Amino acid sequence: MNIPRYSDIVKAHSNLVQFAYRTPILSSARIDVITGGKIYCKCENFQKTGSFKFRGAVNAVMSLSEGAAGQGVATHSSGNHAAALALAARKRGIAAYVVMPETAPEIKKKAVAGYGAKIFFCTPSLEARQATLAEVISETGAAEIHPYDNFHVIAGQGTAMKEMLEDGPDLDIALVPVGGGGLLSGTALALTHLSPRTQLIGCEPEGADDAYRSFLQGEIIPSINPLTIADGLLTSLGERNFAIIREQVDQIVTVSEDSIIAAMRMVWERMKIIIEPSSAVPLGAILEGKIDLRNQRVGILISGGNVDLEKLPFQPNYTSERIA
Amino acid sequence: MNIPRYSDIVKAHSNLVQFAYRTPILSSARIDVITGGKIYCKCENFQKTGSFKFRGAVNAVMSLSEGAAGQGVATHSSGNHAAALALAARKRGIAAYVVMPETAPEIKKKAVAGYGAKIFFCTPSLEARQATLAEVISETGAAEIHPYDNFHVIAGQGTAMKEMLEDGPDLDIALVPVGGGGLLSGTALALTHLSPRTQLIGCEPEGADDAYRSFLQGEIIPSINPLTIADGLLTSLGERNFAIIREQVDQIVTVSEDSIIAAMRMVWERMKIIIEPSSAVPLGAILEGKIDLRNQRVGILISGGNVDLEKLPFQPNYTSERIA
Repeated sequence: MNIPRYSDIVKAHSNLVQFAYRTPILSSARIDVITGGKIYCKCENFQKTGSFKFRGAVNAVMSLSEGAAGQGVATHSSGNHAAALALAARKRGIAAYVVMPETAPEIKKKAVAGYGAKIFFCTPSLEARQATLAEVISETGAAEIHPYDNFHVIAGQGTAMKEMLEDGPDLDIALVPVGGGGLLSGTALALTHLSPRTQLIGCEPEGADDAYRSFLQGEIIPSINPLTIADGLLTSLGERNFAIIREQVDQIVTVSEDSIIAAMRMVWERMKIIIEPSSAVPLGAILEGKIDLRNQRVGILISGGNVDLEKLPFQPNYTSERIA
Repeated sequence: MNIPRYSDIVKAHSNLVQFAYRTPILSSARIDVITGGKIYCKCENFQKTGSFKFRGAVNAVMSLSEGAAGQGVATHSSGNHAAALALAARKRGIAAYVVMPETAPEIKKKAVAGYGAKIFFCTPSLEARQATLAEVISETGAAEIHPYDNFHVIAGQGTAMKEMLEDGPDLDIALVPVGGGGLLSGTALALTHLSPRTQLIGCEPEGADDAYRSFLQGEIIPSINPLTIADGLLTSLGERNFAIIREQVDQIVTVSEDSIIAAMRMVWERMKIIIEPSSAVPLGAILEGKIDLRNQRVGILISGGNVDLEKLPFQPNYTSERIA
């Protein structure tokens, strides 16, 4: 299995520096008072396409040979990776083909189309996605860019923590949401090299806790029918990701839906920034008391800010729905 | 009439620099493409208490003599000024008495109470507010700090544009929402001194257009039954504010409710920051084509970010309500 090293993150950074924003690090005096720690948020919700996914996508696209790039790129994704790959492909002037479940949020469909990708809709199952993607690739010859189980994607995601350590204070603890494990594994590679003393904790919704179970068990145990408002974290760990995570992550904690929503609301109200539910999972873990952060400097990677403003969990009549 | 000069803004800045945030200036490549200008947003939604009002309040509180301060401060306000004054008073260790209409948004009542002010509720009319405030002042001996028609408040609000010019690029146009005129008049004083060539345009909701009418008429014509989602802009111009505005502002434009909501949504979706409806009025004016900003550098003062997340105008079933 081909696993990136820190030098691949450095190379990724030089590939993407002209395309991606160097996002700011924000904090909130009130949230520090509430939690008892000193919390720094790296705002990838301000990243191009509204999530950190643009880092990995742009690195993967820019790493393709001229010949391969000419055939375009393809992926299946319910959202943020799709938009990121679409814009990355546009930056290189090549075609992007995206397989999406019909049930994906409207705002994410619009974003992907808006960045110029060709969308292929399928029914919301992993089998349908994979079958449709295989068809698209056999017709177009496009290179598949997996959303997280991909060498260059992992190296690209690692650049967020690299920037955070370059621009911010030393961190005692780093908290990262985990779905497929792209961000968590990239972060682990960066931290192990740059700040090995920092404790790295993956934060996962209870309703999609395959990383938690896999980490305990020592082997990948995929989620079956995951259910959470954190729609970016429904996917199960990739193989490359797990290989890194099991070696280089200190702990994985799970978080309830109520805590995710409470944390999301706290960030919206106190910090006045829009984060998607997936990004609220680390603060949710703090609010649940799962992480002891008294007098600790804590870095959180805010993964994205793409939400459907017509379906927010703050309404009194909100009920969560199963999203495939 | 006692009108501040630029030197009063400089003094205000030195009074508040240790208490207020120096807020960032953000921009959005996508919004620039949509509007055709280069737009810079000074993010007072990130200011303490969630709005620019903290600048004026803290300057007013810190400018009181020891003797006057000991009696506390009092005001009537439907929200942002009340929270700002409450926190400013706490910073000086003095009492704050706030008269609020019973109909004020829940989030603003909670914020004011949370900062330690004593709240007196009244019916939602200007007469009831004034009568209740007069009673409170006669009982406590507190100093009245008017939300906008106050020398030190105006000087404090002027510090936002001072910072914007110090930290950002030269501006061809500056856009500022106008309600009572505290921010607009303070901005005018700063711009006239620091960048007289910059065109200053006040932006006002159609449903509360007293500044527009007063500016045309050359005398204060208060709003009667104003109605707008921009709940920070329901008040009518103050005398000091109008005296400055009529001399030093180039134009006032009005904006429809639909444009305010569309602009607010655009900022939430594209910039991933939370702004309140009042702050969306300048971008609403741009979306309506009322301001020619092709190839212009445009500064917008984002006035605040206090919204009730349970009552957002993005829901399909949203209907606007009269707010007094």
